Amino acid sequence: MTIFSKIIAGEIPSYKIAENDTCYAFLDIFPITKGHVLVIPKLEVDKFFDLPQDYLAGLIKFAQPIAKAIEKTFDCNRCGMAVIGLEVPHAHIHLVPINGIHDLSFSNPKLKLSPEEFTSIQQRIIANL
Amino acid sequence: MTIFSKIIAGEIPSYKIAENDTCYAFLDIFPITKGHVLVIPKLEVDKFFDLPQDYLAGLIKFAQPIAKAIEKTFDCNRCGMAVIGLEVPHAHIHLVPINGIHDLSFSNPKLKLSPEEFTSIQQRIIANL
Repeated sequence: MTIFSKIIAGEIPSYKIAENDTCYAFLDIFPITKGHVLVIPKLEVDKFFDLPQDYLAGLIKFAQPIAKAIEKTFDCNRCGMAVIGLEVPHAHIHLVPINGIHDLSFSNPKLKLSPEEFTSIQQRIIANL
Repeated sequence: MTIFSKIIAGEIPSYKIAENDTCYAFLDIFPITKGHVLVIPKLEVDKFFDLPQDYLAGLIKFAQPIAKAIEKTFDCNRCGMAVIGLEVPHAHIHLVPINGIHDLSFSNPKLKLSPEEFTSIQQRIIANL
């Protein structure tokens, strides 16, 4: 069971943004910017492009309103997206508000936020959903 | 008319990988790695997440076999994906074969490839489609 499946099951707490039958979204606790969200399938598949085709389509449809809410919530040009997936063997999409190309660089140092800051970000995104 | 629409229309040449009614894929001529492909909607929309929901789903379904072909063609852990979109106001997905997290960094210097190298890469990906 991956760490993401434990988050979905509620065994590990998360700052949840949204959930449906097949997908789950929550704040990345090692964010590269404020508003960095992870969108994951409930199906435990390592590689993103190994997801069944309809699942892939469902995941991107699920991510869309969350990305639009991120764009509304943060002072950004738009919401960027990245799929890398080398650290956790459970497919995931990074949604990140960006102003410049380097805002989507995972070489950037991770922000350290307090639980209060995470909760505030979570509530602000949900309010714009 | 964006530069990408001109590529779709054939007014600007491209190393085409695949095409259907709504989507087009071709080699990025400023690649960050060999096998760097751009997947674009034929609809001229600036922000990726502003695409109509079904279009978004169609685009990711169209990208999937191309990503799998990239994984087969190059010595990589998997095919990564990025959507940034600050340079051309026409939504596009970057597909990039990656081995490490830094392989998807757009801070990396762009490769300079000859037309023969681009053609060879194009043919190898198409052969694995």
